[in-house]
Amino acid sequence: MLNISMVLIIDQEINPHVDQWEAEGKFPAHKIFKILGSAGFLGVNKPVEYGGLGLDFSYSVAVAEELGNIRCGGIPMAIGVQSDMATPALARFGSAELKKEFLLPTIMGDKVACLGVSEVGAGSDVSSIMTKAVRNGDEYVINGGKMWTTNGTQADWMCLLANTSDGPPHRNKSLICLPMNLPGVHIARKIDKLGMWSSDTAEVFFDDVRVPCKNVIGQEGLGFTYQMLQFQEERLWAVANILTTMDNIIQETIEYTRQRKIFKQPVLYHQSVHFRLAELQTEVELLRSLFYRATALYIKGNDVTRLASMAKLKGGRLAREVSDSCLQYWGGMGFTSDVPVSRFYRDSRLMSIGAGADEVMLGIICKYMDTLPKK
Amino acid sequence: MLNISMVLIIDQEINPHVDQWEAEGKFPAHKIFKILGSAGFLGVNKPVEYGGLGLDFSYSVAVAEELGNIRCGGIPMAIGVQSDMATPALARFGSAELKKEFLLPTIMGDKVACLGVSEVGAGSDVSSIMTKAVRNGDEYVINGGKMWTTNGTQADWMCLLANTSDGPPHRNKSLICLPMNLPGVHIARKIDKLGMWSSDTAEVFFDDVRVPCKNVIGQEGLGFTYQMLQFQEERLWAVANILTTMDNIIQETIEYTRQRKIFKQPVLYHQSVHFRLAELQTEVELLRSLFYRATALYIKGNDVTRLASMAKLKGGRLAREVSDSCLQYWGGMGFTSDVPVSRFYRDSRLMSIGAGADEVMLGIICKYMDTLPKK
Amino acid sequence: MLNISMVLIIDQEINPHVDQWEAEGKFPAHKIFKILGSAGFLGVNKPVEYGGLGLDFSYSVAVAEELGNIRCGGIPMAIGVQSDMATPALARFGSAELKKEFLLPTIMGDKVACLGVSEVGAGSDVSSIMTKAVRNGDEYVINGGKMWTTNGTQADWMCLLANTSDGPPHRNKSLICLPMNLPGVHIARKIDKLGMWSSDTAEVFFDDVRVPCKNVIGQEGLGFTYQMLQFQEERLWAVANILTTMDNIIQETIEYTRQRKIFKQPVLYHQSVHFRLAELQTEVELLRSLFYRATALYIKGNDVTRLASMAKLKGGRLAREVSDSCLQYWGGMGFTSDVPVSRFYRDSRLMSIGAGADEVMLGIICKYMDTLPKK
Amino acid sequence: MLNISMVLIIDQEINPHVDQWEAEGKFPAHKIFKILGSAGFLGVNKPVEYGGLGLDFSYSVAVAEELGNIRCGGIPMAIGVQSDMATPALARFGSAELKKEFLLPTIMGDKVACLGVSEVGAGSDVSSIMTKAVRNGDEYVINGGKMWTTNGTQADWMCLLANTSDGPPHRNKSLICLPMNLPGVHIARKIDKLGMWSSDTAEVFFDDVRVPCKNVIGQEGLGFTYQMLQFQEERLWAVANILTTMDNIIQETIEYTRQRKIFKQPVLYHQSVHFRLAELQTEVELLRSLFYRATALYIKGNDVTRLASMAKLKGGRLAREVSDSCLQYWGGMGFTSDVPVSRFYRDSRLMSIGAGADEVMLGIICKYMDTLPKK
Repeated sequence: MLNISMVLIIDQEINPHVDQWEAEGKFPAHKIFKILGSAGFLGVNKPVEYGGLGLDFSYSVAVAEELGNIRCGGIPMAIGVQSDMATPALARFGSAELKKEFLLPTIMGDKVACLGVSEVGAGSDVSSIMTKAVRNGDEYVINGGKMWTTNGTQADWMCLLANTSDGPPHRNKSLICLPMNLPGVHIARKIDKLGMWSSDTAEVFFDDVRVPCKNVIGQEGLGFTYQMLQFQEERLWAVANILTTMDNIIQETIEYTRQRKIFKQPVLYHQSVHFRLAELQTEVELLRSLFYRATALYIKGNDVTRLASMAKLKGGRLAREVSDSCLQYWGGMGFTSDVPVSRFYRDSRLMSIGAGADEVMLGIICKYMDTLPKK
Repeated sequence: MLNISMVLIIDQEINPHVDQWEAEGKFPAHKIFKILGSAGFLGVNKPVEYGGLGLDFSYSVAVAEELGNIRCGGIPMAIGVQSDMATPALARFGSAELKKEFLLPTIMGDKVACLGVSEVGAGSDVSSIMTKAVRNGDEYVINGGKMWTTNGTQADWMCLLANTSDGPPHRNKSLICLPMNLPGVHIARKIDKLGMWSSDTAEVFFDDVRVPCKNVIGQEGLGFTYQMLQFQEERLWAVANILTTMDNIIQETIEYTRQRKIFKQPVLYHQSVHFRLAELQTEVELLRSLFYRATALYIKGNDVTRLASMAKLKGGRLAREVSDSCLQYWGGMGFTSDVPVSRFYRDSRLMSIGAGADEVMLGIICKYMDTLPKK
Repeated sequence: MLNISMVLIIDQEINPHVDQWEAEGKFPAHKIFKILGSAGFLGVNKPVEYGGLGLDFSYSVAVAEELGNIRCGGIPMAIGVQSDMATPALARFGSAELKKEFLLPTIMGDKVACLGVSEVGAGSDVSSIMTKAVRNGDEYVINGGKMWTTNGTQADWMCLLANTSDGPPHRNKSLICLPMNLPGVHIARKIDKLGMWSSDTAEVFFDDVRVPCKNVIGQEGLGFTYQMLQFQEERLWAVANILTTMDNIIQETIEYTRQRKIFKQPVLYHQSVHFRLAELQTEVELLRSLFYRATALYIKGNDVTRLASMAKLKGGRLAREVSDSCLQYWGGMGFTSDVPVSRFYRDSRLMSIGAGADEVMLGIICKYMDTLPKK
Repeated sequence: MLNISMVLIIDQEINPHVDQWEAEGKFPAHKIFKILGSAGFLGVNKPVEYGGLGLDFSYSVAVAEELGNIRCGGIPMAIGVQSDMATPALARFGSAELKKEFLLPTIMGDKVACLGVSEVGAGSDVSSIMTKAVRNGDEYVINGGKMWTTNGTQADWMCLLANTSDGPPHRNKSLICLPMNLPGVHIARKIDKLGMWSSDTAEVFFDDVRVPCKNVIGQEGLGFTYQMLQFQEERLWAVANILTTMDNIIQETIEYTRQRKIFKQPVLYHQSVHFRLAELQTEVELLRSLFYRATALYIKGNDVTRLASMAKLKGGRLAREVSDSCLQYWGGMGFTSDVPVSRFYRDSRLMSIGAGADEVMLGIICKYMDTLPKK
């Protein structure tokens, strides 16, 4: 039932406008999130008392898979930030008051959320962020800035990671709910990107921004840990989403190459083409299987950092392979902007960079394999 | 409990002799199979009335995984032929009389089985075999020959695929239980191989061999179909087995490179080394996940030809990658015959050739994707 | 001396405007070509009597290498069309009259040329083009259309490949000099592309276009052969050009990653990064060496179709590898539009598609290896 | 003329015995080297006064290319050690007396040479060797050991690298001509290897071995530098040699797959097969081109360390790709020991390990790119 309604929303409210929003470099987040929120899709695994559906995380990723049918990568990503990247820590560790103020309207689609982690000079290396929240009475005074902030030009609030003390880098950070309309919050610019055009990406600066200390999520100083937990869901969500897109791209390539002829037979019938597509589909099924396994373990309460990092790593690399190989079989058409495969080629490149670059995933996997150099 | 006993057999009865058997090009199949049969490992998913344990296929592949701890590829393969490659069709479709004569002693480890499918000029292309079994009264008269027959020099009987009529190639074949001591069965030679040294591989010729018609398994003419079914288990078995070996090789490489130093630090601590090992382990986990998924579906009665073919394809390719990359980090030692990684390098190359070459797997996957040229 | 002047033109007349032209989807071809033509760069290996410098082809590719320093792929490509893709056949086989009318002003930069080969449904498969030039008295009447025409919206004339008879597809084509301002020539639209933004790409239709028969280049019916010859220079030119760009991208990535820090040390100092860059530079040197060898043989009069096809194939694949790997090390910056590496990522994707796709190159190489199926 | 005679030697004196020598793990070095020496092939670029032909290095690598036609990798390697790996430093820097005693009989084929560089724990990391030559009057007293010594069980003398002082590791080493029949030289064992079976590989120990100080090649303390120079020729030689072998393997695979049928057509006619062979031949031509370029520069007196390291790196990787891909198309036959492709699969694996492993080549290339971490 969920899925039927999702299909309708995607087909009627989103896909017909995607080309335009891609061209404009922005989509109307408030409008779309309200539609999704009203239908229950922004809080699938969130508590019922805050507007969620109270289901487990497998339903969240089922939604993520369905969102892969949107004809671009930017809008699903923006939705994912709202539903599964900026809110898991708040839902799990936040106070009732905070949840009422920020989580509930986010799940309802009344407020747009963004996640403030990455900074200039601290993208994948989260522990090196410089933004400071200095306690002054019962307020924090925040200075610094965030980079690559998805939804950043439209967001009503940010789940902000900031240094709240001078302690060791994994113990001195906190997650804070920060309204974006506070004095001192400056949206510096919308960043032009290689892909993900319909999703706005902002650079945000904080200049003596004051926010109440009670806006901290959970315990002060545990922000790094919370964010690492939050990343697990973000990464599985991203994999779920891109799996569908890869299926679609392969399928559309099959259909197109069945029509397109070269040297008197359909492009598809050349063995190098259908064999390559079979290899790609094999890799997609491998990833899907790992994703299922990791999700099942996560729902049962296991730490799936190792498997989720592996899935994220493979997802980023495979998306590049799928988009690159498929584009080739579209010939000149593949190099136009008119076909989904070229948009996917641009959009999917982010998967190996955002939410922890491939190299960060490798580092995490090595940590679990105990193969990193001893200091 | 199963596993404890298996560990003991491998550690005490098999591994101490592997180097010698590798050098001799043969292992004592009757002796080892009797030990395994007595412990119940040769018929894990076979009917209790014929000496099996009556468990489902997931237990069979659990045994296959455990057998991956044998210090070579040849002996596990020989065991797999006995337990899961030459016998599934017999167990499922054979008459009670045939099962009593051939299946029961095979499960007990009293008879050694081999599988007669491949021929000169018809390796992966099973439908093109030329061996004929011509009905003459209540006997078949068999002429032709088989190639690449694992266990062939020691086997007591062969599960033989032969053409029993002139019909279309997918409808004219039958599986026949053929005692190897019949007049006219000639073992032409033991084939020297790149790897899998401890497993004997024979070329077998049939010269007017006479066998009762009641030795046909199931229905005459359905041999191709039965063999395709039998291949599903063979392929999943092979994947299960090689997964363990890949885990072991990666782990031993970690341990060795932690000791071995180059340029004043352990080889392992070079980033290109531990990153590469993390990539390999990621691919292994991907394959393991697909293998679990396919096995779970198979147990529930699904046709898993597509997923099993994908797993077999990936298994063959990944085994080459793992053995090649790991060998590199052993330096000169990797090029000696004294280390497991060089044996695995030789042995594992078979995975992409036997039981249907990679290209055959791609063809099957394409068939399921409906991307093959229409005739 | 040539190079000094080229460096000045690129630095002063071209690079400062590239970002703007990229944004506009077009560059002022007439203006830029006039500058280049006046300096002698559009006819380096063309006859002196038609404004060329009369040097050998090694000088042409030296210019192509230098043009690789332009900060985008589209403008060098447009220049290459003018100097080495639309004109070689005319220079070699054209009548004096035709050369005076079309070649001379093209070399001088007074006329913009385009090449009309690709069509909808006949991109890499040149023999399948449908455009017809039917003789009517001393005129051809041309109907059909061309696709992917670089310079197409600005060109003064097209080197058009059309079917001038119904004979076998390799013998029925001719190259014709076609003024673009003739009645019946319709520029249907500018095509939006994944990359190469500053280069305009047109779809052109011919509706009873009348052109004198004397506009045919060389002998009627030999157009396919001439175009195949012309492709040799086009492909070597493209390789020369992209070699410089790849050098630049690797070098800029080294410089950027030397500054950018992650986990407390420069990104460059991570072994996986500098090793990967060393691998890429190795592949670039391999390609450069093959390119030098092919060029040297070509100048001596050899048929270098085999080597030029190999270079083109490798060039396309390597450009994708270089751009993809380098982009990764720029992190989030690599995904912005502000850095050369992301432009190169988009632009270079064309190399495996245009001027004969990778698969066409493979087919040519197979032909020379005599490995294609016999009909 | 050279080549004709070489072809005869290979066809008549070597290839007919290769299978036997492979099985025996040794070939008669003294006999074969005498034949080659008498024909002038062991000192092509060595001074005429010591029995050489006085030609430039391009003739040496031409011989190396020709030796690639020997039906195994071990014998060419053994010859290369004799002609181009153990002797370049002696020829260039050795005293007249040393050259008369060691170089002349080596070139004539009367003495077998080996090269003593690698040690346990110092394979590719040459600067870390531990073998010491301590000056005692006008003798060195040598203690330590060498590993992976090609020709080691048959050699009459060794070009030994040893530490002759306690200075910094790049300045404290010397090359010494060491007769192998001196007291205290122990050949510990012949090492069993994955491939290169016909070439004996020894572990050698030195127990108070006394050798005159005048046996040092050139200047004491410059041994590391000399060996690095010597490596340039060794690496180019190895590339030359394997280029021919790769050509042969591809060609034989074409011929075999043209005969072998699967699914009713020759294996070769499957597009995935002939396309893959075209890719491999392309890579071979790339390597050949780089090799030509490096050799030409070397002959003119340039330092080609960078290009030679790139060629060696690519050679090792490509040999693995060629042997692995080609073997696949031989099907079951590829996994037997009867075919050249499986021998090449085993032999060629050494190319990425010996004479400086791939990772060492990458390090050298990085050094020239100035991308290594600053201490």
